[in-house]
Amino acid sequence: MTGKGQAAALETLIQAFRRLPGVGNKSAQRFAYYLLQHDRDGAMALGAALNQAVATIRHCARCNTFTEAELCDTCASPRRDQALLCVVETAADQLMVEQTMSYDGLYFVLMGRISPLDGIGPREIHLERLLERATDGLVKEVILATSFTQEGEATAHYAGELLKTRGLAVTRLARGVPVGSELEYVDASTIAHALRDRREVD
Amino acid sequence: MTGKGQAAALETLIQAFRRLPGVGNKSAQRFAYYLLQHDRDGAMALGAALNQAVATIRHCARCNTFTEAELCDTCASPRRDQALLCVVETAADQLMVEQTMSYDGLYFVLMGRISPLDGIGPREIHLERLLERATDGLVKEVILATSFTQEGEATAHYAGELLKTRGLAVTRLARGVPVGSELEYVDASTIAHALRDRREVD
Repeated sequence: MTGKGQAAALETLIQAFRRLPGVGNKSAQRFAYYLLQHDRDGAMALGAALNQAVATIRHCARCNTFTEAELCDTCASPRRDQALLCVVETAADQLMVEQTMSYDGLYFVLMGRISPLDGIGPREIHLERLLERATDGLVKEVILATSFTQEGEATAHYAGELLKTRGLAVTRLARGVPVGSELEYVDASTIAHALRDRREVD
Repeated sequence: MTGKGQAAALETLIQAFRRLPGVGNKSAQRFAYYLLQHDRDGAMALGAALNQAVATIRHCARCNTFTEAELCDTCASPRRDQALLCVVETAADQLMVEQTMSYDGLYFVLMGRISPLDGIGPREIHLERLLERATDGLVKEVILATSFTQEGEATAHYAGELLKTRGLAVTRLARGVPVGSELEYVDASTIAHALRDRREVD
């Protein structure tokens, strides 16, 4: 038991929830108390799902994304366009692109981005694996879909230079005004990009 | 595997996270991907903490709060004032009062509140257990610390009437302007209460 009069197992649970991104003490307390008071089945289910995921989920041998098999569904599919390779920073980013339902090529998940301040250079994000993957003879175009942050841009720039020397077409996601947004609330740099990349109305 | 190309264990984990209060699909995805990519130890720790909590945490025989023993630390303490009983809706609310470090009496956790729309009446929140607890001969004053919502007020009103007929002093937490807030942003009803309950400057 702690000085606050909380059961030790409860305190341990709250601390475990605090390891989640964006979850502070208040949210962690709320999660723990909620599960114990209203949804003990949910607590059991979450515990089991965590153990199961850690035990079974590994990285796709070809694209790095999370999978339970040697190859992920996407890499194993005969229906995907083998000439297109979309490079993303994380498996979560890959899921976002996939959810657009407008891309039928393959992926490569970097599992990171160049970040000199954190000591993460080209070597740490395994760009040589990307080069190897992109030069399989089937890939024609590499779409760089890293974030539009300084680090994501640096990663895209560095990877792009390497890929171009291998004779591959290299593209980058378009920058522009997000769908549904009002110009008044969009930052100037985004509008500048949208102006430069303006397209004819068809 | 799902149509979205996510591993089944990953999808199960995301759904399990969605059972947490205030966690939608987006946050659940973020939690799952974060743990798998950056903190597999954290995932294991959370899984173990959940199992441990569900297995060991039960309700204090005297005040209903979460505890691993028959009686919680607070109820078992000889240093708490046996004449004061603070009634709260949930164990989380009890923790909030305890964290003020300004209360040395005992608690009774209702584990709910009267909510006619949800079919929760006086019987469902076990008010007779509260009456039994409050009439142990030691309790002199019952502080009703249920929420200042319609349901919390109804619960306080109903419990208050019952307790008063037993000859107990019954009080309610003061309503007023929250510390640190500007009057401009406080609702009129709160200001009205703060005016009525104004106190002399000492």
